[in-house]
Amino acid sequence: MALKKVVERQTGVALWRQIADRIRLSISNGDYDATGMVPPETVLAQEFGVNRHTVRSALAALGEEGLVHAVQGRGTMITRKDRVSYPISRRTRFSQGLGRQVKEIGTRLLGHAEVPASGEIAAALAVSPGSPLTELRTVSSGDGRPLSMSFSYFPVDRFPRMAEEYSRLGSITKALAAQGLDDYVRVSTEIVARHADADELSQLKLSPGAIVMEAQSVNVDLDGKPVEFSRTRFAADRMKLRIET
Amino acid sequence: MALKKVVERQTGVALWRQIADRIRLSISNGDYDATGMVPPETVLAQEFGVNRHTVRSALAALGEEGLVHAVQGRGTMITRKDRVSYPISRRTRFSQGLGRQVKEIGTRLLGHAEVPASGEIAAALAVSPGSPLTELRTVSSGDGRPLSMSFSYFPVDRFPRMAEEYSRLGSITKALAAQGLDDYVRVSTEIVARHADADELSQLKLSPGAIVMEAQSVNVDLDGKPVEFSRTRFAADRMKLRIET
Repeated sequence: MALKKVVERQTGVALWRQIADRIRLSISNGDYDATGMVPPETVLAQEFGVNRHTVRSALAALGEEGLVHAVQGRGTMITRKDRVSYPISRRTRFSQGLGRQVKEIGTRLLGHAEVPASGEIAAALAVSPGSPLTELRTVSSGDGRPLSMSFSYFPVDRFPRMAEEYSRLGSITKALAAQGLDDYVRVSTEIVARHADADELSQLKLSPGAIVMEAQSVNVDLDGKPVEFSRTRFAADRMKLRIET
Repeated sequence: MALKKVVERQTGVALWRQIADRIRLSISNGDYDATGMVPPETVLAQEFGVNRHTVRSALAALGEEGLVHAVQGRGTMITRKDRVSYPISRRTRFSQGLGRQVKEIGTRLLGHAEVPASGEIAAALAVSPGSPLTELRTVSSGDGRPLSMSFSYFPVDRFPRMAEEYSRLGSITKALAAQGLDDYVRVSTEIVARHADADELSQLKLSPGAIVMEAQSVNVDLDGKPVEFSRTRFAADRMKLRIET
């Protein structure tokens, strides 16, 4: 078969993860559109030259990502063809961005604190190093599956009730509006990719060796004054970023 | 020490890679700015609770990325504080984007071929599936270190001499100009992150388990007609993407 030998034993990545990557690509390429099903485990095991246990681990991972689900007595059906796409533009808003790709969007506040601005964040927010910021830590999910976690920072001087308003309203946009900021835009985003650390593995319910894309961004008001600095980690197996230029 | 326990043995990521990640973060945060040196191997080994061999592997990886270099009898000096930043905007051009971050930019043509347009690429380029495209495969380097590899596709009907002109001129912008296209803009980019496959490990000279960010993009002429579809894989340990919105 054409796919044979696509998994390699010397790449430093678990075989089940490489196979999940290949099946994810085949699903998004439409290779299985005719049936809407992933080929049977025995067929996949032969194609990739691995045992069924390894194939099963790969399919379980794709199930966790929401791409496939097992149907008793029939096999593995395709639920969704692609990762959830998250748009990055001047008008990025988390909940609107996911649009019709997921039925239910949930954001949970993990915690909040007042912290002094580090040198880097102070520079991004154009405040003095050490000046007080509200830090919000949140996890966002689509249809019950964690997609991203964020650390967001807001100047306390300008937005003194950030944590309370966020707790009450469940949205950064609404919490800023409740404190007099009607509109804001995204001016810059930097993206790196790395392996998830232990906290991210746990909060995003990822398996060891999983990758996160970390987007560091600054939002400003319509006068160009920074209002928010954030670091968002997206689960790379479940999300892709779409840049609109 | 504050850093103790930041490496975890159950994350599915090699210890040396986790330590390289932590040191890379400390370098970019400016933690070592006072001396311009990474702490001695024995100090790092104690901080992270690992042996010196593991620390040495981490420092070797950072050396490969161009962040540090060993100085005989003195220790490990910091060469550059951060990953090379690659801008993505409407006017993205590879060579200009890297600007003053690297001294020497090199792009090498790995190969070219005439291929039929797949369904996905045909849709992106607004041509019929199966119509002929020129595929260019290139690797780009900064100061001799591979940074990214690209697969780019151009309609043969409109740009019949793409491979020859690229071979002659060494630049996609110049090769398009030589065939009558004076200007073009980037309209969309999608970014995913995943583990490098065997071909990417080899072409980008990465170590097993390394991550690539894959950017899939479409460029159009000033009338909005697509002229290029490309997939670029950036070595995630060496590059970050900067989105200008």
